[in-house]
Amino acid sequence: MNRIDNRKPDELREMKMITDYIKHPQGSVLIEMGETKVICSATIEEKVPFFLKNSGTGWITAEYSMLPGATHTRNIRESSKGKIGGRTQEIQRLIGRALRSVVDLKALGEKTIWIDCDVIQADGGTRTASITGAFVALTMAVDKLYNQGKIKVFPIKSYVSAISIGVMEGTELLDLCYEEDSKAHVDMNVVMTDRGEFIEVQGTGEEAPFSKEQLLSLLTLAEKGNRELTRMQREILGPIGERIGESKEEK
Amino acid sequence: MNRIDNRKPDELREMKMITDYIKHPQGSVLIEMGETKVICSATIEEKVPFFLKNSGTGWITAEYSMLPGATHTRNIRESSKGKIGGRTQEIQRLIGRALRSVVDLKALGEKTIWIDCDVIQADGGTRTASITGAFVALTMAVDKLYNQGKIKVFPIKSYVSAISIGVMEGTELLDLCYEEDSKAHVDMNVVMTDRGEFIEVQGTGEEAPFSKEQLLSLLTLAEKGNRELTRMQREILGPIGERIGESKEEK
Amino acid sequence: MNRIDNRKPDELREMKMITDYIKHPQGSVLIEMGETKVICSATIEEKVPFFLKNSGTGWITAEYSMLPGATHTRNIRESSKGKIGGRTQEIQRLIGRALRSVVDLKALGEKTIWIDCDVIQADGGTRTASITGAFVALTMAVDKLYNQGKIKVFPIKSYVSAISIGVMEGTELLDLCYEEDSKAHVDMNVVMTDRGEFIEVQGTGEEAPFSKEQLLSLLTLAEKGNRELTRMQREILGPIGERIGESKEEK
Amino acid sequence: MNRIDNRKPDELREMKMITDYIKHPQGSVLIEMGETKVICSATIEEKVPFFLKNSGTGWITAEYSMLPGATHTRNIRESSKGKIGGRTQEIQRLIGRALRSVVDLKALGEKTIWIDCDVIQADGGTRTASITGAFVALTMAVDKLYNQGKIKVFPIKSYVSAISIGVMEGTELLDLCYEEDSKAHVDMNVVMTDRGEFIEVQGTGEEAPFSKEQLLSLLTLAEKGNRELTRMQREILGPIGERIGESKEEK
Amino acid sequence: MNRIDNRKPDELREMKMITDYIKHPQGSVLIEMGETKVICSATIEEKVPFFLKNSGTGWITAEYSMLPGATHTRNIRESSKGKIGGRTQEIQRLIGRALRSVVDLKALGEKTIWIDCDVIQADGGTRTASITGAFVALTMAVDKLYNQGKIKVFPIKSYVSAISIGVMEGTELLDLCYEEDSKAHVDMNVVMTDRGEFIEVQGTGEEAPFSKEQLLSLLTLAEKGNRELTRMQREILGPIGERIGESKEEK
Amino acid sequence: MNRIDNRKPDELREMKMITDYIKHPQGSVLIEMGETKVICSATIEEKVPFFLKNSGTGWITAEYSMLPGATHTRNIRESSKGKIGGRTQEIQRLIGRALRSVVDLKALGEKTIWIDCDVIQADGGTRTASITGAFVALTMAVDKLYNQGKIKVFPIKSYVSAISIGVMEGTELLDLCYEEDSKAHVDMNVVMTDRGEFIEVQGTGEEAPFSKEQLLSLLTLAEKGNRELTRMQREILGPIGERIGESKEEK
Repeated sequence: MNRIDNRKPDELREMKMITDYIKHPQGSVLIEMGETKVICSATIEEKVPFFLKNSGTGWITAEYSMLPGATHTRNIRESSKGKIGGRTQEIQRLIGRALRSVVDLKALGEKTIWIDCDVIQADGGTRTASITGAFVALTMAVDKLYNQGKIKVFPIKSYVSAISIGVMEGTELLDLCYEEDSKAHVDMNVVMTDRGEFIEVQGTGEEAPFSKEQLLSLLTLAEKGNRELTRMQREILGPIGERIGESKEEK
Repeated sequence: MNRIDNRKPDELREMKMITDYIKHPQGSVLIEMGETKVICSATIEEKVPFFLKNSGTGWITAEYSMLPGATHTRNIRESSKGKIGGRTQEIQRLIGRALRSVVDLKALGEKTIWIDCDVIQADGGTRTASITGAFVALTMAVDKLYNQGKIKVFPIKSYVSAISIGVMEGTELLDLCYEEDSKAHVDMNVVMTDRGEFIEVQGTGEEAPFSKEQLLSLLTLAEKGNRELTRMQREILGPIGERIGESKEEK
Repeated sequence: MNRIDNRKPDELREMKMITDYIKHPQGSVLIEMGETKVICSATIEEKVPFFLKNSGTGWITAEYSMLPGATHTRNIRESSKGKIGGRTQEIQRLIGRALRSVVDLKALGEKTIWIDCDVIQADGGTRTASITGAFVALTMAVDKLYNQGKIKVFPIKSYVSAISIGVMEGTELLDLCYEEDSKAHVDMNVVMTDRGEFIEVQGTGEEAPFSKEQLLSLLTLAEKGNRELTRMQREILGPIGERIGESKEEK
Repeated sequence: MNRIDNRKPDELREMKMITDYIKHPQGSVLIEMGETKVICSATIEEKVPFFLKNSGTGWITAEYSMLPGATHTRNIRESSKGKIGGRTQEIQRLIGRALRSVVDLKALGEKTIWIDCDVIQADGGTRTASITGAFVALTMAVDKLYNQGKIKVFPIKSYVSAISIGVMEGTELLDLCYEEDSKAHVDMNVVMTDRGEFIEVQGTGEEAPFSKEQLLSLLTLAEKGNRELTRMQREILGPIGERIGESKEEK
Repeated sequence: MNRIDNRKPDELREMKMITDYIKHPQGSVLIEMGETKVICSATIEEKVPFFLKNSGTGWITAEYSMLPGATHTRNIRESSKGKIGGRTQEIQRLIGRALRSVVDLKALGEKTIWIDCDVIQADGGTRTASITGAFVALTMAVDKLYNQGKIKVFPIKSYVSAISIGVMEGTELLDLCYEEDSKAHVDMNVVMTDRGEFIEVQGTGEEAPFSKEQLLSLLTLAEKGNRELTRMQREILGPIGERIGESKEEK
Repeated sequence: MNRIDNRKPDELREMKMITDYIKHPQGSVLIEMGETKVICSATIEEKVPFFLKNSGTGWITAEYSMLPGATHTRNIRESSKGKIGGRTQEIQRLIGRALRSVVDLKALGEKTIWIDCDVIQADGGTRTASITGAFVALTMAVDKLYNQGKIKVFPIKSYVSAISIGVMEGTELLDLCYEEDSKAHVDMNVVMTDRGEFIEVQGTGEEAPFSKEQLLSLLTLAEKGNRELTRMQREILGPIGERIGESKEEK
């Protein structure tokens, strides 16, 4: 089977990241995975949600949105609808959970880091690109806090990246674009650390259930994709072995 | 390690189902998994959402809610808040997706089946109990349509059930109650068919990432739990091999 | 005229109450009046609305809701609509007012008691069943406070119950079921104490105005019905003459 | 006991009505009951709510609101709050029900009459003044339809008026002003026809339950008050015996 | 060209103001510009919005609304829609800004003055009539504070009035009524002080752009209109040269 | 006085436009005015709002939004707040009005053109940059319709651009950046055609009223700025004298 853009089944789309894409947030990046483009930013706020007041613990929360013009047919703004849809809420909960899983919120102290992922062009894989980009923006913001001495212990414990995999016409594919995604029978998103551990595995076979064998080979593809993504994050963020204390040598 | 209620790690809580629990919906069941109690009902409406008008295809949609008194501390009604929270939306999207995955919506015809899952008492595993119970309510409603000749081909292709698994203090556990769930580091929900296929796999390691080995042994636990649940659904619904056309002999 | 269910005009439907129906709230009861079934619960919260802060006075507030499957045709959730309808608001204001009228809120102290009435099956008279059941749940919750020494003076001064009456085809009927109610020309709800006093009288002749004579004979029916309801509440709650201080001997 | 404004217990406040107070609606009146001032208007719309489409039947619906400056302390606009409060909803449901009860909606045909009651100054009794004024605005609007031949049978069957009564310091009072109302233990609103029939009786003893004797003597006061209000409505609207078909001679 | 109501192009409609129109607010006026009628009121609140807490500075905020019956076809209440429309928000922001521009908010101290402009009948120019009337209500309220010694320095620095001008069929017109306004190609609102300075100039040529010459001659018309409005405000408010400190002799 | 960025008082910031910035909308541009960056897009929809159904007339409507990270301190998403603020509504009404004023909506036919202006970085003048950029996106989209023969007469009649001017420390400035804007006493936005006509003039002197002389010299600055902007738009869009029918030679 030939992929639309001639990639091999286990090949990522071309990925680019432009850091400091917008100037006001403490960290920001424009991440591109092929035609999918997301502005990710991290803003530090010196207070925490009410349930953490006086706990000494920080928080990371994420918001995700699409520009109306990001999709094939214009999507209606959620501000015009007056409410945030289920899909959006699921995605922002996922992004927040993924980032929090690798951060020592105690070490962060009573701060909230707001992650904003705004999709300016969508071509499949916007939630996974958001996580991969958001990790970079988050690290840039945390670096500032750390370099200014506002936090004593570097609180990020691992890299985080995410990728989609799926089954289309019987073939297992890595990093599906929109057209592939809309034809896939099984759709999966996998969030991982740079240590090869899983943070989140979400697989759905709405069109057709899938077997354990398929699940296993999809996970293998996801491991390959995430390994490459982590490598590119590391290139952007520079050697961070010392910041991320416990892992002296980079993997 | 001893479980709170003395169950073995791979043991389900006691499960009960009272069918026709409320009289107006075409199908209804009160499902109890230990102290978790959910009223599941299925109501047939003779129209479809706008995106299916004149398509000849039906739809299944789910709503999930908790009574304010269902939880340890009273939870605020979403009608009072004026909006549906992210967790609720995620769960109702999951229930709808799981049920649609085993129904031939073409064969159903231009009807909507509304699934309502109302948790009257919560003790962990409300979303998986909802799916397991909702399948029974759905089948009861579809049976009525089928017996009245309103649909010609029985549209349900497999049984569906769901169960939670997790890792608590290093031990993999089946069917976590609330107290176990709140202490678990890995939390997973698995929706399966009676053929042992996966419909949905959702695993989260917010507290701590998990390895591939752990993932595999959790899936094995889930398979065991779902097998038992399907057996109980089959007892309630009676032999349905012929209704569910292609699988003559029950597995 | 024969009633649908062969009752006499002045006969109540069969009434049942299952106390402690759900385990988390301090008081709870499943009340059934014929086919009408309502879960009533009372939850104590250790704070009061802003207008009572530092007043030393407590508050009782009620919420009322119907499961979507409770009615003949599925009723849309108010959480989905994003607002609470006028009928619901009227009913929850009525329940709260009725219960507050017999409670010494000063003696309760700065606490809020949340009353939740969730109709799981509706067949007429849901608001009056809610009041009758809510009084039982409230008393159970207050008993706990009183027995734990958290309140010094028992704050409930009288029993409260409520019943509907109406005029159908010229006959005055007690405790109308849904089918009777939908045919009635005059529709009335009467909330009373165990002393035979009126707390609330609401009579509507939307279809046809009614005369003073009719009003009087409907009130007589209501008195009979409420007397019987109070008797049943007393059986459930046990002898409470001493708790409800001033009335040593039960009436 | 002397009343604040030296009225006798059974005396109405001075009542004034200025018809055609605003020019755009088909009927409008400024009604004053003492210091309470309400602009009531009736606007005809040539369509009906969806549940009456193609039924040949009309509808009357009411909205009630207060200017922010109408009360002692500025009340917040419901448009700013983004939702309509329970009290407002109760009142507008009451006004609509009261007017519909004397109109033959079949004879009205497929039209909606919108009743708007906007309180510009509040001093007790705003809901009853609204009903009394709204009936005048409604009749003016219906007169126009009737005189233009747009309806064949005059659809209004009786006059409607409403008054409040209450018990303050043991005395039964007619037409309470705000200060009296805030001290009353029993609060009652009675809507009646010119034939002396009851359309709506709403009595509440939140502060203290009331006896049947009190109820009866309050109803007698209400009858007196409504008789006088109807007389004033008749002066404004002119002899309408022939319009209101069946009652040739005015009572 | 003859104007609909035979006015000359540079002639205002008849203007009337009834002060103390409603009794509860500290200042109130019913302003009529021809058939346009607006109730303007000013209510003092002893607190400020959160962004001014502990700043020693006061605030003036305005709300604007129309009764449903104020317009040719009934306009839907914004409380029923659940949100405030763009036009309403624009107008209330304009009114607030115009009044704040002539008030020394420091001298006012930590108080909020709520301005309410409720249009009871609309015939063009409701926003400008609102500003002209609101200034009178505001001054009445501030007078009370000043006379009671609650503020030491009279904080109002100039009179404020506003008028509309426009171009209809090539003629420049002052103070357009609704029918003229709906035919005008250029529509302009000008807010001025009694010193002939501009506070706000808003000109729109949606139907047709306008030249600089037109703009200048429209501004001249606006100056004439506002001069007359200020004169009438001064008649109502009495000689205030001393209150408005710096301008001893009235201009 | 030296400007922050060393510009002369009548000098624009550096302006850049990247067309086709996002691929799905029919027209799109990233416009930069100094540090202010806005993505403007135009999407064609083959239907019109209900008030234009069957009128043969088209519509242009605009939405404006800011990314949370666009401003100095993160601004809260309007979708999270559940409503669109007054400032946003004012701006989107202004953009829509400005564009409609130069388009022959009859010639456009029954289509809606959605204009989206999403500010990704804000440094003053976002609303005027939005109008200038939106005109380019609109023209690109209309060009496509025209070239595909879907409209017969080119419906755009003039170029439109907009610029801000203001008075800071007594000096009149063109194209204020955020820091200048926050210190300005007079704030003005002027929308013009390429023929030197005014479409919209909005001047506010909240901090201090302004004289007619100031108004005139600000308008002169605005004319200079808009002339330069139009020239740059023409460079981007190419010679369009023939498309914009009546003006053969470009000005």
